[in-house]
Amino acid sequence: MRLSRYFLPILKETPREAEIISHQLMLRSGMIRQQAAGLYSFLPLGKKVLDKVCAIIREEQNRAGANEILMPTIQSADLWRESGRYDAYGEEMLRITDRHKRDLLYGPTNEEMVTDIFRSYVRSYRSLPLNLYHIQWKFRDEVRPRFGVMRSREFLMKDAYSFDVDFDAAQIAYHRMFVAYLRTFHRCGLQAIPMRADTGPIGGNLSHEFIILASTGESEVFCHRDYLDMAIPSEAMDFDDAARLSSIVKDWTTPYAATDEMHDESAWNAIDESQKLNARGIEVGHIFYFGTKYSEAMNAVVTGPDGKEMPVHMGSYGIGPSRLVAAAIEAFHDDAGIVWPRSIAPFDVGLVNMKPGDADCDAACEKLYGEMTAAGLDVLYDDEEGRAGSKFATMDLIGLPTQVIVGPRGAKAGEAEVKDRASGARDTVPMDNVIARIMT
Amino acid sequence: MRLSRYFLPILKETPREAEIISHQLMLRSGMIRQQAAGLYSFLPLGKKVLDKVCAIIREEQNRAGANEILMPTIQSADLWRESGRYDAYGEEMLRITDRHKRDLLYGPTNEEMVTDIFRSYVRSYRSLPLNLYHIQWKFRDEVRPRFGVMRSREFLMKDAYSFDVDFDAAQIAYHRMFVAYLRTFHRCGLQAIPMRADTGPIGGNLSHEFIILASTGESEVFCHRDYLDMAIPSEAMDFDDAARLSSIVKDWTTPYAATDEMHDESAWNAIDESQKLNARGIEVGHIFYFGTKYSEAMNAVVTGPDGKEMPVHMGSYGIGPSRLVAAAIEAFHDDAGIVWPRSIAPFDVGLVNMKPGDADCDAACEKLYGEMTAAGLDVLYDDEEGRAGSKFATMDLIGLPTQVIVGPRGAKAGEAEVKDRASGARDTVPMDNVIARIMT
Repeated sequence: MRLSRYFLPILKETPREAEIISHQLMLRSGMIRQQAAGLYSFLPLGKKVLDKVCAIIREEQNRAGANEILMPTIQSADLWRESGRYDAYGEEMLRITDRHKRDLLYGPTNEEMVTDIFRSYVRSYRSLPLNLYHIQWKFRDEVRPRFGVMRSREFLMKDAYSFDVDFDAAQIAYHRMFVAYLRTFHRCGLQAIPMRADTGPIGGNLSHEFIILASTGESEVFCHRDYLDMAIPSEAMDFDDAARLSSIVKDWTTPYAATDEMHDESAWNAIDESQKLNARGIEVGHIFYFGTKYSEAMNAVVTGPDGKEMPVHMGSYGIGPSRLVAAAIEAFHDDAGIVWPRSIAPFDVGLVNMKPGDADCDAACEKLYGEMTAAGLDVLYDDEEGRAGSKFATMDLIGLPTQVIVGPRGAKAGEAEVKDRASGARDTVPMDNVIARIMT
Repeated sequence: MRLSRYFLPILKETPREAEIISHQLMLRSGMIRQQAAGLYSFLPLGKKVLDKVCAIIREEQNRAGANEILMPTIQSADLWRESGRYDAYGEEMLRITDRHKRDLLYGPTNEEMVTDIFRSYVRSYRSLPLNLYHIQWKFRDEVRPRFGVMRSREFLMKDAYSFDVDFDAAQIAYHRMFVAYLRTFHRCGLQAIPMRADTGPIGGNLSHEFIILASTGESEVFCHRDYLDMAIPSEAMDFDDAARLSSIVKDWTTPYAATDEMHDESAWNAIDESQKLNARGIEVGHIFYFGTKYSEAMNAVVTGPDGKEMPVHMGSYGIGPSRLVAAAIEAFHDDAGIVWPRSIAPFDVGLVNMKPGDADCDAACEKLYGEMTAAGLDVLYDDEEGRAGSKFATMDLIGLPTQVIVGPRGAKAGEAEVKDRASGARDTVPMDNVIARIMT
């Protein structure tokens, strides 16, 4: 993509309303724009990162056997009356009346609707296990929305729902999602640690939050250093292997890990001082097993092997992709801007033409741009005139993993400068070696 | 994908509420489920087709130089008060009040919000042309929603917005989208004909609808047969070539074409009888040029070459992907079910194991499934037990372009039957030739 044709509205000043670094950097780098309190547009750079995060989530959900659907954002209040949550949910639910005076709402979550889909079609235990997920906008009318897309009112959520014949099967479903989450966050470049969680308004009795470590994180976390070196299950993971799933979950839930809400001082004090990790964290995922809470209320039953009807056991599994984008910035930034992990960077490479109009620079850049694109690299080519300092500052701010800088002298000599955004290391490399240098 | 792990709830009966064939077939084939009046979930099969349609739209928007963003579904009423449309829009607008008693609405379209984004960042004519688009859910509170996703209340829309310095530049932007639309519908397998349109509530003075021909279409259309053989601009089309764009648009707007609303009997009667095509059609896209209507009302101005401020000239360009899925079914079905065009089919191939549990059948199917997948084919593998008639009926109903059928005798003999869904032609083919047969 040529910068001259890309909508990348960089802000020079940090908007005053942005309290946390991810919000500041997302506004400054032209990733998002606030449209109203808690309502954001994703501009092209932000949309690209959001798409990359969603693609990883989707691949890992599919790998774990979940089926993707897409439920509407607007729901009928009647469904929520069945579960009893319409009155219980409180003011965070955005309630709507349509032209025929029917009560609707903007879904804050989808337990009711997915249970309704399930009960409409599934009759037998033989159709289980089943896991349905979607990635759809949700709305929670926060009293005081802030922190940008970290806590917006309208936000994107991947929510998966598992249906099983009994507790044992439901636990396997829970383990599948647990392992899928480990892989998802790891692939996004994030160090996520599962921590036992309160089950909150969704209800239920088994729940974990996935917390990523970030120095600017919203909450204090306490965990054993063992987590930092634990292996992530590979792509070859067999999600039908219940014993293997269970053993992975056991490994990942045995060492101490807790948010301040769930912190247990005596367990913490039993850990050797050198093994304690007291840090800041951000919740990026939350999984629940809640049994037959909704299936009983809404009559979602299957016929078992014995011919008797029984309510299904359910779990729900959430990740907020829009929130995850912000959380990744909290985890990866420096004074100059964002430092994207490769897997979710909006572009792989920023190619900087230091002197557009100079024949050597233009020719060298066009050649590199064509070759890098052909090699499968996604390149943002800064082909615009501008001061060197401003061009460099923009590239650092938007945080692409690699910068390739071509000036008139280098172009003449057949050389480009390759800069690694994370380390800041710069090397002068012959033009013909640039791609090999980036790909290794 | 193995059918035993896929959520494909086929209905045996046609639901009574479905009046048109696409609605009937989408319900029967488990593509969608109605959640409330005019609100639909896309189930896995429907979601896949929707994704394929969106991917084609996105590629062609990007090719034509548009930048993808993502605006929120919920908008502030204040923006619409600026343009004057908040009061004008009527009951189709879903109006919402939040917990702080602020007026919000569920966006039925995004002219106001995108104009607000534009005016926040763009100052100079040098930043133009600019075209921003998004693919996002919209809501229009129809009095009597019906026809499934063809006319739902919540529906997906791709809406693009162009910003230009004057009429001439805006006309080039309009031509770009016109040509992108020709390519988009063609790639979806549809024969779309642009017809002059009324500009309706969006306003403006230049507008075309893109109508696809379908025997069950909602409206009567009148056009010259020349349209049926006109060439579609190739992938190599240069969207910077204004003269070429203009000449393509001229070619595609010269022969007579009109919906019944805009029909001109005298022009129609001037056409030779043998060249008249009087058919049924469905609107799948709509493009508008509306000049400075919103930029003046909302003060979206740029500084021109002469240093003076001027309001930008705008156009908007819509395609409803969820509606397009239904329209494609109206165009392509037979008595047995859907007949997908290859490019938007949910899977390329349906592999039918006639006798799961039979060692020969299982081995042959597993081998074919692995090989087809490795060859890049997306395969739905029916590995479930069932009566032959029911298995065939399901495959015909869901309309995958090719079926590969493996029975015990064939498996023993090293042969499979390959059926082309559209023609119904069936051939017995040696196992080793199945892939070559499908790919050619």
